[in-house]
Amino acid sequence: MIRTLSSRIERLKASPIRDILSVAGQPGIISFAGGLPEGSTFPDVGRLTAVQSDLQYGPTEGEPRLRSCISEQLYQRGLHVEPSQVLVLSGSQQGIDLVAKLLIDVGTSVAVESPTYLAALQVFSLFGACYQSYQIDDIASIADTANPALLYSIPTFQNPSSYVYTTEQRMALAQLCDYKNTVLFEDDPYRDLAYEPCDRTPVCSFVKHTSWVYQSSFSKTIAPGLRLGYLACSKDLLPHLVKLKQAADLHSCRLSQRSVLRLLNDDTAGHRLNHLQVNYKMKRDAFNASLLRHFADIATWQVPAGGLFFWLTLRHPLSVPTTALLKPAIDAGVTFMPGEPFFADGRPCASCFRLNFSHTQHTDFDRGLALLAAVFKQYTTKY
Amino acid sequence: MIRTLSSRIERLKASPIRDILSVAGQPGIISFAGGLPEGSTFPDVGRLTAVQSDLQYGPTEGEPRLRSCISEQLYQRGLHVEPSQVLVLSGSQQGIDLVAKLLIDVGTSVAVESPTYLAALQVFSLFGACYQSYQIDDIASIADTANPALLYSIPTFQNPSSYVYTTEQRMALAQLCDYKNTVLFEDDPYRDLAYEPCDRTPVCSFVKHTSWVYQSSFSKTIAPGLRLGYLACSKDLLPHLVKLKQAADLHSCRLSQRSVLRLLNDDTAGHRLNHLQVNYKMKRDAFNASLLRHFADIATWQVPAGGLFFWLTLRHPLSVPTTALLKPAIDAGVTFMPGEPFFADGRPCASCFRLNFSHTQHTDFDRGLALLAAVFKQYTTKY
Repeated sequence: MIRTLSSRIERLKASPIRDILSVAGQPGIISFAGGLPEGSTFPDVGRLTAVQSDLQYGPTEGEPRLRSCISEQLYQRGLHVEPSQVLVLSGSQQGIDLVAKLLIDVGTSVAVESPTYLAALQVFSLFGACYQSYQIDDIASIADTANPALLYSIPTFQNPSSYVYTTEQRMALAQLCDYKNTVLFEDDPYRDLAYEPCDRTPVCSFVKHTSWVYQSSFSKTIAPGLRLGYLACSKDLLPHLVKLKQAADLHSCRLSQRSVLRLLNDDTAGHRLNHLQVNYKMKRDAFNASLLRHFADIATWQVPAGGLFFWLTLRHPLSVPTTALLKPAIDAGVTFMPGEPFFADGRPCASCFRLNFSHTQHTDFDRGLALLAAVFKQYTTKY
Repeated sequence: MIRTLSSRIERLKASPIRDILSVAGQPGIISFAGGLPEGSTFPDVGRLTAVQSDLQYGPTEGEPRLRSCISEQLYQRGLHVEPSQVLVLSGSQQGIDLVAKLLIDVGTSVAVESPTYLAALQVFSLFGACYQSYQIDDIASIADTANPALLYSIPTFQNPSSYVYTTEQRMALAQLCDYKNTVLFEDDPYRDLAYEPCDRTPVCSFVKHTSWVYQSSFSKTIAPGLRLGYLACSKDLLPHLVKLKQAADLHSCRLSQRSVLRLLNDDTAGHRLNHLQVNYKMKRDAFNASLLRHFADIATWQVPAGGLFFWLTLRHPLSVPTTALLKPAIDAGVTFMPGEPFFADGRPCASCFRLNFSHTQHTDFDRGLALLAAVFKQYTTKY
């Protein structure tokens, strides 16, 4: 019998989706639900490496050589940071936890895109955020009324919409944060999965005055099982984030850090990334062809210029949340990600859902999408 | 310029010690400060292992085979838990973060030993804990007045005191938590570093009604660089802790999990642990001999029955905190851990400090302790 849980646990939403999806991981189910990379894109496990000294405790901030390497990569992206501004993370999910701890009290105003990454909403809500949602392509909509302490954005191949901010939108977002003295938190895990030319300059590089945090991940370009990501931030925030990281897990796994450093410096790194892009672009196109076959009459979508997802909007909204279709879909042997958890305001979306194209085998696309379309068509008629 | 940080950051204490100790890690300094295992006790890095499928995302709860293996070990310790009650952690520091999130609001009453593990205090304070301190060997002292929501204890080779609860004290502590409906949080990272026979039965195994969390670590018996620990808990708490773990870092590094599982199931695991105990026991005795040579006239201590630390009490308290001696000690080429950060009530201790005997080379003990004693003697005279 539990006596008292913290008040934040009341805000830790029950996740029926999580439970259902754990069932969905079983063999025989075609899954478009998660954001899993294709396993064949991972480096050969034999190329991972560690040395004896990696077994001891290490620095909270991360391995110095890895921080330098990340700093160099960020320079190339247009974000000028010193190695001392880089904090290695145990996956970029940890960055969300640390930034939420740093900035969010109960009632703190947080601006988020609508829709946005559901696991960021989960963490922000845990700490008591009040949301100011804005349409991704309408940054001006928060310009007058809201005054958020924190703005969370995924400007490049956004999750779930795969939207890419234009250069003008990037500059406008940075200006807005400067103007309002809002901390900009830019989440950029998909940027290297680019299939079309587009501006991917970090929005943080346009910031003039305000505090900012930029984070990315090695989960999509190297391997998620290593649990490694990083953040870079304005110098005022770093000491706090280092202490919060220390309190969270002391430091990140040194085997993972050593392996990632080796793979980043590997002669074949550029080739691997190029191969990844070519492979995923082909999968995207094959997925789109199947979508056109099965969903063109009931939904609309944009072909994503990068990232891992198609975001579909039903031509006629259901009268039930798309979450209600998850169980029938699983019963039919296929999964997808309902739209509702991506919206901060909790209003039933009933018309949007996300499909991942990276994880499922190419050869299963058409069968899976046919099964899924049948479920949607059944419910479109029913409700 | 930061607009607003969360109120919890005000409670995230500045850590001059952390800054000083980062200097202290430099070559030439003899360090008795940290809790680092001796590097020669680590397994050969070549025995770490991973398979290709470990590179994909994994389950939040941890690898099923590792959870089963941990459950079996806990059965052998007297704590009867099913594999489903085990949650793999990215080091046991993460368990402290998750339990604090689960239970601590601003003003929540938390009972802690006096002294206790400083990094637990750091996290509990971050979330706003109000402390009820009790003397380790006087559990009854909290029986009447306090009514804590959470009680944090390190019953076996406590950090920093190395105290071991007797069987009676273990039972009394469990009864107290049952009586008060206080959640018992037992931290047990040192239990396998036992140099004398003593009861190490988990206190959680004596609990009848109340909720509990038991956690331990592979940092002391395998290697800290892997960042792997685990918790087991009463069934009511597990679903919450799994969700909090998911929000914190999705799951722990799978290379580390695979490697630890292999090492636990290795034929040589028992031999390794035995070797570790014999080696550390010899170091403890050599350290004690040097202590007797240099500190007998100014301090008292118990020879620890296990763990990694000597906890010394000055015969005559200083008029300054022991923290004030850290810089002079480093200037003299030696470090130690001041006593003050181990006390929840923040009152200057001025008479206690912790010395680690596991990390420093055996051959450096005598020289380091002579240098340190000289600093203490100088200040004992001065103040």
